[in-house]
Amino acid sequence: MAVYTEVSDEALTAFLALYDIGTLTAFRGIAEGVENSNYALKTTQGDFILTLYERRVRKQDLPYFLGLMEHLRGRGMPCPLPVRARDGRNLQELAGKMAAITTFLPGVWPRRPQLSHCAPLGEALARLHLAGEGFAMTRPNGLGPQSWGPLLEKCLPQADSLLGGLGGDLQGWLADTLAHWPRALPTGQIHADLFPDNVFFLDGKISGLIDFYFACTDILAYDIAVCLNAWCFERHAELNVTMSRALLRGYQSVRPLSQAEIAALPVLCRGAALRFLLTRLYDWLNTPEGALVTRKDPLDYYRRLRFHFSVSGAAAYGL
Amino acid sequence: MAVYTEVSDEALTAFLALYDIGTLTAFRGIAEGVENSNYALKTTQGDFILTLYERRVRKQDLPYFLGLMEHLRGRGMPCPLPVRARDGRNLQELAGKMAAITTFLPGVWPRRPQLSHCAPLGEALARLHLAGEGFAMTRPNGLGPQSWGPLLEKCLPQADSLLGGLGGDLQGWLADTLAHWPRALPTGQIHADLFPDNVFFLDGKISGLIDFYFACTDILAYDIAVCLNAWCFERHAELNVTMSRALLRGYQSVRPLSQAEIAALPVLCRGAALRFLLTRLYDWLNTPEGALVTRKDPLDYYRRLRFHFSVSGAAAYGL
Repeated sequence: MAVYTEVSDEALTAFLALYDIGTLTAFRGIAEGVENSNYALKTTQGDFILTLYERRVRKQDLPYFLGLMEHLRGRGMPCPLPVRARDGRNLQELAGKMAAITTFLPGVWPRRPQLSHCAPLGEALARLHLAGEGFAMTRPNGLGPQSWGPLLEKCLPQADSLLGGLGGDLQGWLADTLAHWPRALPTGQIHADLFPDNVFFLDGKISGLIDFYFACTDILAYDIAVCLNAWCFERHAELNVTMSRALLRGYQSVRPLSQAEIAALPVLCRGAALRFLLTRLYDWLNTPEGALVTRKDPLDYYRRLRFHFSVSGAAAYGL
Repeated sequence: MAVYTEVSDEALTAFLALYDIGTLTAFRGIAEGVENSNYALKTTQGDFILTLYERRVRKQDLPYFLGLMEHLRGRGMPCPLPVRARDGRNLQELAGKMAAITTFLPGVWPRRPQLSHCAPLGEALARLHLAGEGFAMTRPNGLGPQSWGPLLEKCLPQADSLLGGLGGDLQGWLADTLAHWPRALPTGQIHADLFPDNVFFLDGKISGLIDFYFACTDILAYDIAVCLNAWCFERHAELNVTMSRALLRGYQSVRPLSQAEIAALPVLCRGAALRFLLTRLYDWLNTPEGALVTRKDPLDYYRRLRFHFSVSGAAAYGL
């Protein structure tokens, strides 16, 4: 639910005058996305999205995010195209925030992932990885393995208030995951947050991949691990192996995985589950009363972690 | 910020099959409105709004709200037209809630009311009152004078926690307002909640009047009092008499007020301010921690009430 910054009529009019996208006909806040303020913007030339970047997004990262979207779109990926203003820049200031206009993408994000979504998702993720080649900029993963220890330390004093023994479990799992973290897998531009609400479908096909504000340069197969966690678990955090197999097969139909990538799948899944468990736990313990953001239950990912630590190899995911 | 009910893909598809509005191309939650869940719905035939009615809206009132919108739209008012499904009904069920599709209206609601908005607003309100004539249904005002005493009683035990003496002030003001409440003014269909976020402007003209879910059959001039409170006060709750004069003149250019209506303006403004002060106070004292709804400061309306009790006649509003 995200409109944190209100835009005055005068500021909006002045802002739109910077662009060559026709005349404003409608402007409505969008309830989706939690990091930034998003507005649906309609002009005589069509539909657009206006995003105001809030404090969690670092200003110096914006050229990477917007540049990556432009690069991917230029290579045929269905992601939002940042619109350049008359001055050639795709980033401007509005209501005291950095702001960008992107093209509108059709489609509906799946409220409940189904088997039929998994193969197209895997294919799209592999195409995204190939399309990212040649993009000149890099961005370290701010929520990669090096961040998990410090995050856990901040959560430890209160972790057991959520679940007895949680802190100790996490310490053990984190040490094990870091000790086995793969060092030599192929890297590239990854989305790093490709949850169902960031993937639009239309007529059974993917029509949009959005929200590149966690994108970074990291292990490609880690992106698969994020998707396996986000798309292929049943309500009680049991892996649906038919779904994970479909996702992995879809991916490999475009970009076959190396033996090293396949072997690393369990530890990558553990790492991805830790990343979301830790950020959700941190938010859970630190979201102020009355905040407008829905806190997501960290324990969904605790149960996934238990699963990922119970498996002995990639075969458990249907490979 | 309002998406309380998530709609599954299957339920949405089945729901849209009831209508003859083309094929779904996009579906996004809207961050505006606080009572219901609203989605922007795009089909091959255009833009629509899908509303799911949440618990604050009584099911038995929906035919009145939807019927009134259809009636007003048929008389040229720029309000949403409820779309009838193939079975002829404009109300269906979706995700366990009553739901309706309405047409999309262009425009932008003013984040900060300006003098230039006030005359068009007054004209539109008067046209709405005239257009409401002939609508066969009636609905009592659930938040009219008879509701204020019970609301205040529920708030009294905690009222002074917000401001010392607030409870006593409200008791005195309520008794005075009820004692002077006009009994013989013209009544009709009123909007009863025409705040800036319910009025869209495009090129300086009103392009949309939305959110008829407080509409009811009550004193027409009470609707003016709601607008004076909502549009014509400066940041520190001082009346901007230039704005209120413009609003009243705009109204009278379409529907001249009787002497009795003019004389009643101060008490109607007191009542309207009490109504919003009391519901905001109740919400303030009863909004659970972590709720997704922004609580509005009741004291904005306390300051307006002080003003309305300081005036001796309608001249204070620029008449």
